Amino acid sequence: MHRTHNCGELRRANAGQTVTLAGWVNSYREQGKELVFVDLRDRYGKTQVVFYTDDDSKIDSLARRLRREDVIKIVGEVRYRGDGLVNAKLATGEIEVRVQQLVVLSRSKTPPFEIEGGELPNEELRLKHRFLDLRRPELQRNIILRHELTQAVREYFNQRNFLEIETPMLGRSTPEGARDYLVPSRVHPGSFYALPQSPQIYKQILMVSGFDRYYQIARCFRDEDLRADRQPEFTQIDVEMAFVERDDVLNTIDGLVSSVMKKVRGIEVPVPLPRYTYRDVMERFGCDKPDMRFGMEITDITDIAGASEFSVFKTVSSSGGRIRGLNVKGGSEKYSRRLLDVDLKNFVGDFGAKGLAYMKVAGGKLESSIAKFFSDAQQQEIISRMQGEEGDLLLFVADTYKVTCAALAALRNRIGKEQNLYDPASFACLWVVDFPLVTWNAEEGRYDAEHHPFCQPNPEDSEYLKSDPGKVRADSYDLVVNGYEAASGSVRIHDSEVQQMVFDLLKINSEEAERRFGFLLEALRFGAPPHAGIALGLDRWVMLLAGNDNIREVIAFPKTQKAADMLTGAPSGVDDRQLRDLHIDVVEPPPK
Amino acid sequence: MHRTHNCGELRRANAGQTVTLAGWVNSYREQGKELVFVDLRDRYGKTQVVFYTDDDSKIDSLARRLRREDVIKIVGEVRYRGDGLVNAKLATGEIEVRVQQLVVLSRSKTPPFEIEGGELPNEELRLKHRFLDLRRPELQRNIILRHELTQAVREYFNQRNFLEIETPMLGRSTPEGARDYLVPSRVHPGSFYALPQSPQIYKQILMVSGFDRYYQIARCFRDEDLRADRQPEFTQIDVEMAFVERDDVLNTIDGLVSSVMKKVRGIEVPVPLPRYTYRDVMERFGCDKPDMRFGMEITDITDIAGASEFSVFKTVSSSGGRIRGLNVKGGSEKYSRRLLDVDLKNFVGDFGAKGLAYMKVAGGKLESSIAKFFSDAQQQEIISRMQGEEGDLLLFVADTYKVTCAALAALRNRIGKEQNLYDPASFACLWVVDFPLVTWNAEEGRYDAEHHPFCQPNPEDSEYLKSDPGKVRADSYDLVVNGYEAASGSVRIHDSEVQQMVFDLLKINSEEAERRFGFLLEALRFGAPPHAGIALGLDRWVMLLAGNDNIREVIAFPKTQKAADMLTGAPSGVDDRQLRDLHIDVVEPPPK
Repeated sequence: MHRTHNCGELRRANAGQTVTLAGWVNSYREQGKELVFVDLRDRYGKTQVVFYTDDDSKIDSLARRLRREDVIKIVGEVRYRGDGLVNAKLATGEIEVRVQQLVVLSRSKTPPFEIEGGELPNEELRLKHRFLDLRRPELQRNIILRHELTQAVREYFNQRNFLEIETPMLGRSTPEGARDYLVPSRVHPGSFYALPQSPQIYKQILMVSGFDRYYQIARCFRDEDLRADRQPEFTQIDVEMAFVERDDVLNTIDGLVSSVMKKVRGIEVPVPLPRYTYRDVMERFGCDKPDMRFGMEITDITDIAGASEFSVFKTVSSSGGRIRGLNVKGGSEKYSRRLLDVDLKNFVGDFGAKGLAYMKVAGGKLESSIAKFFSDAQQQEIISRMQGEEGDLLLFVADTYKVTCAALAALRNRIGKEQNLYDPASFACLWVVDFPLVTWNAEEGRYDAEHHPFCQPNPEDSEYLKSDPGKVRADSYDLVVNGYEAASGSVRIHDSEVQQMVFDLLKINSEEAERRFGFLLEALRFGAPPHAGIALGLDRWVMLLAGNDNIREVIAFPKTQKAADMLTGAPSGVDDRQLRDLHIDVVEPPPK
Repeated sequence: MHRTHNCGELRRANAGQTVTLAGWVNSYREQGKELVFVDLRDRYGKTQVVFYTDDDSKIDSLARRLRREDVIKIVGEVRYRGDGLVNAKLATGEIEVRVQQLVVLSRSKTPPFEIEGGELPNEELRLKHRFLDLRRPELQRNIILRHELTQAVREYFNQRNFLEIETPMLGRSTPEGARDYLVPSRVHPGSFYALPQSPQIYKQILMVSGFDRYYQIARCFRDEDLRADRQPEFTQIDVEMAFVERDDVLNTIDGLVSSVMKKVRGIEVPVPLPRYTYRDVMERFGCDKPDMRFGMEITDITDIAGASEFSVFKTVSSSGGRIRGLNVKGGSEKYSRRLLDVDLKNFVGDFGAKGLAYMKVAGGKLESSIAKFFSDAQQQEIISRMQGEEGDLLLFVADTYKVTCAALAALRNRIGKEQNLYDPASFACLWVVDFPLVTWNAEEGRYDAEHHPFCQPNPEDSEYLKSDPGKVRADSYDLVVNGYEAASGSVRIHDSEVQQMVFDLLKINSEEAERRFGFLLEALRFGAPPHAGIALGLDRWVMLLAGNDNIREVIAFPKTQKAADMLTGAPSGVDDRQLRDLHIDVVEPPPK
């Protein structure tokens, strides 16, 4: 071993010992002709090592040629720095090591950016030099956090009789939702494997096989156009349980979240996490993944507004639309007329809202260009329902239910952030349950599964399955953290006839169902237990815990938004022979 | 939860309790009109549940329609079976549950094969019905063993400051050795990702990045024609360490093997594991992965045989060949002349040996058709060197060194097995070190890397790097268990100049090296620590511990030797639209 200690562990108690350290030259400083100071760095910390000219002129001249990021090994004596000379900022700040031997293990060219401090270059340069970027303390911390979180997750499940079972990466293409990544088969010309979008069907098969508690930290793939928080390959904590009902899964994940947050970051998360229905969060927050770090809920005033003299509100109300609003506490001084009339109006416009009405609470009344359309009683009713107080700003959108949801949810998030309504380091987790089973796809003229085609319809709604499918609730649930969907799951169908009925509803005809999911249908015919499961996005969870909003900061070797690996240059051209072996040919895309 | 207890946990102490159980109907037996017995099964065990006609005629009639593999839930009272009625073979054999309520959760069609006992059908049928096959106790045990081994491995590394770090599945194609699986890129027409054959380069990059102790349970891919113990996707325990030397890795893995074997199977493996050089095992066992559960080492008698009057031996000896043999203890009665002259001769013939000479030790002398060519003194010398005793059978191959190695290694394994020279449930582990760095590839007229191009040449042999590369030993090592290569690793090159020199030796020209490995060469120029690593085959390790010799028995969803998944039907045809999106076309292979 090229070291007796790492660079983070020496203390005053080690004084007098002869040690061997190895690491990177983090900084280099000469003090006249007598001394050279080097901060030696490794994953564990930094230690100051000192070269004295008097000790050995050869070592001294070698030391004077050291540059940042060179890798060296030194042997030396640990010394207490002396009272008043201790560096309290450094864990090893009580000591330094007086060098007796020096070996340069490896030289470094001048790095294109600073490892510590300094301004960060653009992300592309960092990704191209990922081997240097990963040396930066922030990324070291993130990767270590990711390791710790992953292991805490495993420990939690292992202690509860869950089995980690590996499912195939080379699977069958069952196109739906996202695009599959395909892998041409050499042995079967013209056939393809697909990389899994999730281990969904395999884990259901495992339940049918009697492995009643399964988990896997599973790599999944989606060939989608990427957004900031998406990667072509991502990692999910994949869970499935048999002989359970919805709340058993929710309780299990409550326990996971609270135990992992406590273990990894020392954060207390009270459980059970609050559970809201889809209908409830849409009504109160306008979206199915509300950020609950702050309140400012949506309030409906359709009845009052519809009875007013304001024609816009009246028209919306009478045509079945809604008038809903937010109360920005103490906001009347914070938003200028310009901000309200232009900026916020355009902002909600991006979500389809035709306008933004606003009123200020002043002197116990409403102050607004439209206040005159409201009677005193109506004004009092609005103030009371909105819990308005002196100085509050009330914002309203009048539109279809869908548009009011979208516009007010976005507006709420924006104002929450710009008014600092919450501590960005805090966490607010909740469950959203009872999603709709299907949504109408007007373009294709059929229903789409809201979660996926294996999701159990709520038995209470089975009467609507044929008559009014849009009304049927699914036995599904999402875990929402700080406005992100952190996990998604459902009770699964374990009856092949119900499964067939849902396929029919989704207009997946029998032949297609047989071709794509035949093996699952067949498995359900041989004694399938009731089962339910969930998948949590690992990357996103680490990102939230790292306090970051770029998912690439918590992945060792991420891809760009163009799905490229800047370090290795993947994807790349390949030899013609490789393509011949795989029985495929490249088709040039038509010129743009 | 559809149960209060699982099917393996009720004991006499539970008598009197009302419990809810759920599981599969494992067996069904009527006793006249009064009673129906069902063995209810889940992952944890079996429990006998009893239906009494008197209790409830509705339940009774429902019970009488139960069939094997139906999934049911029952509520009932736990009862002690009574003295003399306990089934000692069953963990729950002290009790039975008298049913008060019965819910049929799911019916099963008649399974195409028995879950317990019964004759196994062909593997294809089993793989097609993997959801049933996985219910069999053997497979349940194997999958649980795999889970336990995997977690024990993680625990070992976690306790030692190793970080599990995920590396990409969508990487760059660097064709060598095995074929890559390719993944066409949609965003970059004509470009391809490759699935990793191993995380080799990424883990070396991680060392350059300062993560000095890395591991990963990593999925890897090789598009090779499959043998019985190979799969297109397989799992390896991938390890890399910085600031270490060879023995640090060996000691780490010694600890891993002994702690995991102890934990998972209660097997004591004394460490350090014995370490042999490549040259030594080739001399003594004829191969680089000797099965050390038994002795019967190869003995060289070239000097004696060459001095004899037997012309075959003399010719081989004088042309630089070798005469080497095995002593089959007490074998002279066990192998008939026919077996020796036909069967074993043909057997060694498959490995290139032109013949098999044999001699029996009888009356203190050698008995053989060729004994007459050996003087008494020569006979005594042979007996003594071969440690011959009365009744021993001595077998010799005379040929080039390479052929004697191959033929005798195979012969040794065959005889060891057919003569029961070892306990098949025992384990013998060893290290083989100092492999050659390169082997001559006559076909291509160049040297090939024996391990891979990143393997450090032994510094002691650096003088031969240019003059006689075949002589250079690599700083590499294999872990061998029961004749299988269980792990393989090496000290890596951490100097870009040495790396360039090895690329030159392998006739990988600078341009090609830059194109394929440029990012690694570049990384080595920015301060790379000395590092070394290893990869252990997880599937094979589980297979050995499960006492199996078919790797498909330890993988939940394996592929056939034609790389097909019988359950899902992967690989399969895909939509034209999918191919268009990926800018590829299928080229029909020429008719055969």
